[in-house]
Amino acid sequence: MSDTLKLYHAANSPNSRRVRIFLAEKGLKPTLISVDLGAGEQHSEAYKAINPGRVVPALVLEDGTAIGEVPAIMRYLDEAFPETPLLGATPKDKGLVVMWERFAELEGFAPVMEGVRNKAERLKGRAIAGPHGYEQIPGLVDRSMLRVKNFLTDLNERLEQVPFVAGERFSAADITALVTIDFAKALDISIPAEHRALMRWKDVVSARPSTNA
Amino acid sequence: MSDTLKLYHAANSPNSRRVRIFLAEKGLKPTLISVDLGAGEQHSEAYKAINPGRVVPALVLEDGTAIGEVPAIMRYLDEAFPETPLLGATPKDKGLVVMWERFAELEGFAPVMEGVRNKAERLKGRAIAGPHGYEQIPGLVDRSMLRVKNFLTDLNERLEQVPFVAGERFSAADITALVTIDFAKALDISIPAEHRALMRWKDVVSARPSTNA
Repeated sequence: MSDTLKLYHAANSPNSRRVRIFLAEKGLKPTLISVDLGAGEQHSEAYKAINPGRVVPALVLEDGTAIGEVPAIMRYLDEAFPETPLLGATPKDKGLVVMWERFAELEGFAPVMEGVRNKAERLKGRAIAGPHGYEQIPGLVDRSMLRVKNFLTDLNERLEQVPFVAGERFSAADITALVTIDFAKALDISIPAEHRALMRWKDVVSARPSTNA
Repeated sequence: MSDTLKLYHAANSPNSRRVRIFLAEKGLKPTLISVDLGAGEQHSEAYKAINPGRVVPALVLEDGTAIGEVPAIMRYLDEAFPETPLLGATPKDKGLVVMWERFAELEGFAPVMEGVRNKAERLKGRAIAGPHGYEQIPGLVDRSMLRVKNFLTDLNERLEQVPFVAGERFSAADITALVTIDFAKALDISIPAEHRALMRWKDVVSARPSTNA
């Protein structure tokens, strides 16, 4: 079934990695198509016809429908392939996984991305991904780093109470949190040694074979 | 059923309005409990025990579980009360509604919020909502306004092709887009007259009784 799906992605794209891990956890194997971000292939007419947002990843269904944005791709996959749900199994759990996956994304992943995009020389004029160019704002780099550190503190507190980010079970929230922590190395941020619950969680989650995706 | 739910909200909070419209569209009537944001009630120990994120809205279920974050609340409600789905009916539509609701939120709603929070005198030191204080960055105000204007242009192009934001049917994406446009008045931004498709859509959507919620 899933081999009729096509995933446009990039090996080094953290957002692509979120989807690749999600797919691996569900045992799905869509056709992978690389987009060369360094060469600007995401701005090509061919790719814009697939995803006008000009970002990876994008999932293309058998009927040609393209779904961009990581949480949208995850939602489609968890509905179309409901075995091994990663977004929760009951209405309550579904709500809570959205809440915690979003916490990892908006408080963690997005600040790392903001720091990187406002800092890197090669991203001048491209401080926000997508069809519109925006200049970098240097003041955002320090603020982003502070936000990521606060995220790690908050996440550690959470993991002192529950084994996984969304509660008792591994979910998409763990995927986004793990990718965020690995991505934070780009800002020279790693988990402080005193965040023991977070360290323990990271060891457990990183041992899953899916995380090599 | 839904009268065993409690929604913590604020009358003037655009995020609360997104949920109130969603509830009205589904015919759900939880108990509404006002949080006085002007008086800082969101930072009280009582409210932090409900939502450590210190923001409204938050939905509290019969068993005491609190769900914060608008898309998480919407997800819970659409699963627990599946009549009149507002997040799509098929796996494909569910993915597309997440994609377009997120477009409205991240490209429209979030920039309006960023502009307001980095501009308003009363929000000094509170440029990002939540448990951590962040200083305002004045350069973000102009950039936010530019982003909102680009969002209106992109949304107009979208609505030249389809009647509703996510496609053929009214969905949560229309709710977030409408609340964004009304909220943009806080930055003195309104729909440019040449965006005729967007104007037509706004008239149609604003006529729904739910939008008075």
